[in-house]
Amino acid sequence: MTALDFTHDPSRRSWVTTAKAGSGFPLQNLPFGVVAGAAGEPHGVVRIGDDVLDLGGLATSGLLTDEAHAAAEAAAHGTLNALFALGSGPRTALRRELHALLAEGAPHQQTVAGLLTPLKEVDVLLPARIGDYTDFYVGIHHARNIGALFRPDSPLLPNYKWVPIGYHGRASSVRVSGTPITRPHGQLKAGDASAPELEPTRRMDFELELGVWIGPGNRLGAPVSLDDAESHVAGYCLLNDWSARDVQAWEYQPLGPFLAKSFGTTVSPWVITPEALAPFRIPAARLEEDPAPLPYLDSPLHRAQGRLDIELQALIWTARMREVGDAPQLISRSSSRHMYWSVAQMVTHHTSNGCNLQPGDLLGSGTLSGPTAGSEGSLMEASHGGKELITLPNGETRTFLEDGDEVMLTARAHRPGAANIGFGECAGVVEPAITYP
Amino acid sequence: MTALDFTHDPSRRSWVTTAKAGSGFPLQNLPFGVVAGAAGEPHGVVRIGDDVLDLGGLATSGLLTDEAHAAAEAAAHGTLNALFALGSGPRTALRRELHALLAEGAPHQQTVAGLLTPLKEVDVLLPARIGDYTDFYVGIHHARNIGALFRPDSPLLPNYKWVPIGYHGRASSVRVSGTPITRPHGQLKAGDASAPELEPTRRMDFELELGVWIGPGNRLGAPVSLDDAESHVAGYCLLNDWSARDVQAWEYQPLGPFLAKSFGTTVSPWVITPEALAPFRIPAARLEEDPAPLPYLDSPLHRAQGRLDIELQALIWTARMREVGDAPQLISRSSSRHMYWSVAQMVTHHTSNGCNLQPGDLLGSGTLSGPTAGSEGSLMEASHGGKELITLPNGETRTFLEDGDEVMLTARAHRPGAANIGFGECAGVVEPAITYP
Repeated sequence: MTALDFTHDPSRRSWVTTAKAGSGFPLQNLPFGVVAGAAGEPHGVVRIGDDVLDLGGLATSGLLTDEAHAAAEAAAHGTLNALFALGSGPRTALRRELHALLAEGAPHQQTVAGLLTPLKEVDVLLPARIGDYTDFYVGIHHARNIGALFRPDSPLLPNYKWVPIGYHGRASSVRVSGTPITRPHGQLKAGDASAPELEPTRRMDFELELGVWIGPGNRLGAPVSLDDAESHVAGYCLLNDWSARDVQAWEYQPLGPFLAKSFGTTVSPWVITPEALAPFRIPAARLEEDPAPLPYLDSPLHRAQGRLDIELQALIWTARMREVGDAPQLISRSSSRHMYWSVAQMVTHHTSNGCNLQPGDLLGSGTLSGPTAGSEGSLMEASHGGKELITLPNGETRTFLEDGDEVMLTARAHRPGAANIGFGECAGVVEPAITYP
Repeated sequence: MTALDFTHDPSRRSWVTTAKAGSGFPLQNLPFGVVAGAAGEPHGVVRIGDDVLDLGGLATSGLLTDEAHAAAEAAAHGTLNALFALGSGPRTALRRELHALLAEGAPHQQTVAGLLTPLKEVDVLLPARIGDYTDFYVGIHHARNIGALFRPDSPLLPNYKWVPIGYHGRASSVRVSGTPITRPHGQLKAGDASAPELEPTRRMDFELELGVWIGPGNRLGAPVSLDDAESHVAGYCLLNDWSARDVQAWEYQPLGPFLAKSFGTTVSPWVITPEALAPFRIPAARLEEDPAPLPYLDSPLHRAQGRLDIELQALIWTARMREVGDAPQLISRSSSRHMYWSVAQMVTHHTSNGCNLQPGDLLGSGTLSGPTAGSEGSLMEASHGGKELITLPNGETRTFLEDGDEVMLTARAHRPGAANIGFGECAGVVEPAITYP
């Protein structure tokens, strides 16, 4: 886990004018991404304020040391997989040199300014080619809320506090923020019907999750130890695990969610580095009465700072809000604090059977709800299984998502004495179902 | 679904001397694969008898028409993904021209013979880069056998005869036949224990499955109709979905199998084409009392010939058998007839929510057990949940696999009036667990 250094000093400012204090993308953030300009091929960039810096151009500028140059060169192409594969050494070297070049008073400002493009002039793309995508279930309040719908007396299953529960997701349908999501068809069966029907889902939902981009990864057969796990994290994003609850209810026994999820997953485009989030580490989540994790999921270092403290929000922007000029409305305020199992524990558990992780693999945390009303990370929870209407600030009501609803997830890491670290947006609008062929 | 043509005529023979009558790889099979020679890069080949024909060399020979040339060129590289993407037209053109060039009396025999290499002189590799791997559960006797262990009175769940149940698997740990498989660690919890422990699995099992390589695939949001589904199948293989039953029992609620499966999956290396299997089509599986499939999973063509009739076998070769020179022993004889849902139904259902399939994606059928003793496709079934000893022909006994046991899956399509189509072998030996770090 990363020690704090000069790149975290909140008093330092950038000469890039769009990187204002309080913006989520100050000199202390510097997330990676992939963009395409009007004419250009997809290429890797770093975001600073509302501009992006071309890493391929920086690599050929002669301004970087060898180690930072290797990272910039690896990130210059259409995906960041090669950068992720390099691990934290070259990435941290590049971060430090980017920070120095972008700080007020830095030399070579004219050269570096020539590598900047306003964000609004480029298309922001998926940052990596995703090998495998795994979705976890580490949000304990979500697990408890969902469990309570089925088992009011014992919402958490017996394995929950021992096993970081996860399942394989669908990689091919992961899309970057801004991609519309089409309401899927699926088999729906009413409780009293004799047969299911193929219909558009009536219970379209979002899930507010933290996403994790995997870095170097491990060989098949070689588990990753807990204290080494974070060295395999290339960065973080937001993830919306769109869900068709009625499809899920009918299909999921005995092998888990399948088509209820695989029609689409949205991620935010910026890869927020572990280095940028170093100031926001807090102790691992355990209550007095909880069992100690098994030894492979426990360490003193992890107990001291295994968790991340990032504020998470979900907003909704309905068609009517857009029509009348209303801003998107907050529907959930939560936090990555509510991860019962940490990212390091997810990585270590995932590899404990020898399963190999690869650069560009994506992990989802599972829905991160808080313990109180207003902190639910899905409508399934907020509407108590679709039984209670949710009233939006403009008077509209919902149980699940309607066509035209846009869901926007945002995140921000902040605390006194540290710069604000933003994640950008993970957004998608629900489009009407197709006419089934 | 493919019409029969001259490439299926069982009376035709090849001039390649290793392609003997009764061999599984006669002129009528011609599966694709990827191999690497002593010095060479991985490259695509066609297998004929016990030789492989270099497709890159063939592409530059000038002997092919444009369409067949496109297929050979696409297959010349280190994976067959580009060939799969082309679909059935170019693949069928290449098959016909290969057939003509390899048949007795063909012209250009000296040129073509110069492109052959004995199989024993090359390493046979995984044929494609796998994007996503999905495992189904369409073997109805397996579903019933496993269900009966938990619910003797109602072994099949209510959704089984409506939904082709499937779940996402782990693509990164799929390996080609011959790769050893290490006994995985996992959380095991005895029924009466107060806590689980991280231990090597004590219930290591195999699963006998048919694998499916996906061809062109579909755009996100665009379902594939049932009668178009087979055009997205590039070919077939055998698949062993190794399973740690004790890990599975503890981890699988509520999201399905995860680490109990992701430590490794083995596939046979030869891509048996839909064209080679065209003579072995039989009507779709439905009993009088079964509900009709929903319209999206039903069609007259599919009812008439939706299923494949391929004989499947599992053999075990224990360390003791190898020591004393015994041959591998048959432990299961089953068939692809036992697929309640067909490959076309699997493809159509998978895409019914808009989920996109991509060239090189892999589907597994799920375990294909038969209805009788001796046809179980896993030890979990043959040992009745580990409660009954299985006695091998040499007197050894098993409930689950022991270190040193090699499991070999084989398959053969045969019927009077058609040439034998072999699949080759899907084999892996169980190696002892690592010392956990």
